Amino acid sequence: MQRTRFGDMVCSIARTLDVVGEPWSPLIVRDVWVGITRFDQIQADLGISTKVLTERLKWLVEQGVLERRAYSLRPLRHEYVLTEKGGELCAILMAMTAWGDKHAAGDAGPPVLLRHRDCGQLTHAEVRCACCGELLRGDAVDVEPGPALTA
Amino acid sequence: MQRTRFGDMVCSIARTLDVVGEPWSPLIVRDVWVGITRFDQIQADLGISTKVLTERLKWLVEQGVLERRAYSLRPLRHEYVLTEKGGELCAILMAMTAWGDKHAAGDAGPPVLLRHRDCGQLTHAEVRCACCGELLRGDAVDVEPGPALTA
Repeated sequence: MQRTRFGDMVCSIARTLDVVGEPWSPLIVRDVWVGITRFDQIQADLGISTKVLTERLKWLVEQGVLERRAYSLRPLRHEYVLTEKGGELCAILMAMTAWGDKHAAGDAGPPVLLRHRDCGQLTHAEVRCACCGELLRGDAVDVEPGPALTA
Repeated sequence: MQRTRFGDMVCSIARTLDVVGEPWSPLIVRDVWVGITRFDQIQADLGISTKVLTERLKWLVEQGVLERRAYSLRPLRHEYVLTEKGGELCAILMAMTAWGDKHAAGDAGPPVLLRHRDCGQLTHAEVRCACCGELLRGDAVDVEPGPALTA
């Protein structure tokens, strides 16, 4: 099965794709991120089948990206919230938003704007070097074998 | 067709997924990024069928992520290189690498290490606010309607 295959690759990109590598999963995480947290809300927003959404939510909970939480006890009702791992995954979604805003939004401009709560400004995500803080692009780094390849 | 669907969504995440949203495309971009640039090399590295790789490369060239370039005239041979748009897409791959290294690498540790050419250090990507420079997580931003939604 393709899913197992990507997770087995010794590559952190492939392993991240194994968690959120078919198109629906990142959009489900996006929905939960922006406050669309209940099954029926997510289903209505994405136009996704009950079967596929059930499978995807189960998978994202198993992977520790989302947590299923009761928001009503009588009747018992659940919603989905981001775990810490899921909150960090949103950083990737924000980097995708910045790229899509720049390269795929066309004349209509960005669909949504992001306001950073801490600084209060409308902003976008930048991917920067953890050491020197410079913007990172593909041609700015060299790739070297890591522990999992040299072991 | 699913491809058209995601590209039609008024969402920069969905539109980015439309370009690189099935698992092979990001791994093809990854290969070209790290210097695996020829058809037969990519095919050997990924174990992907000729048909699928041909389709994916054609799509990524059409989308302006990769460029097909002759590296030999006699005999005529081509390789693939990143465009500027593709180089910026690698920033997302680096953010995925950082997340996968942290959350999916296990005890074996990171498969590869990234060395930033400018500062010379082994590094990882951080996703930061373009305004204040703080690290971004999902719960740090509010989403507001942008031009494409309010028009």
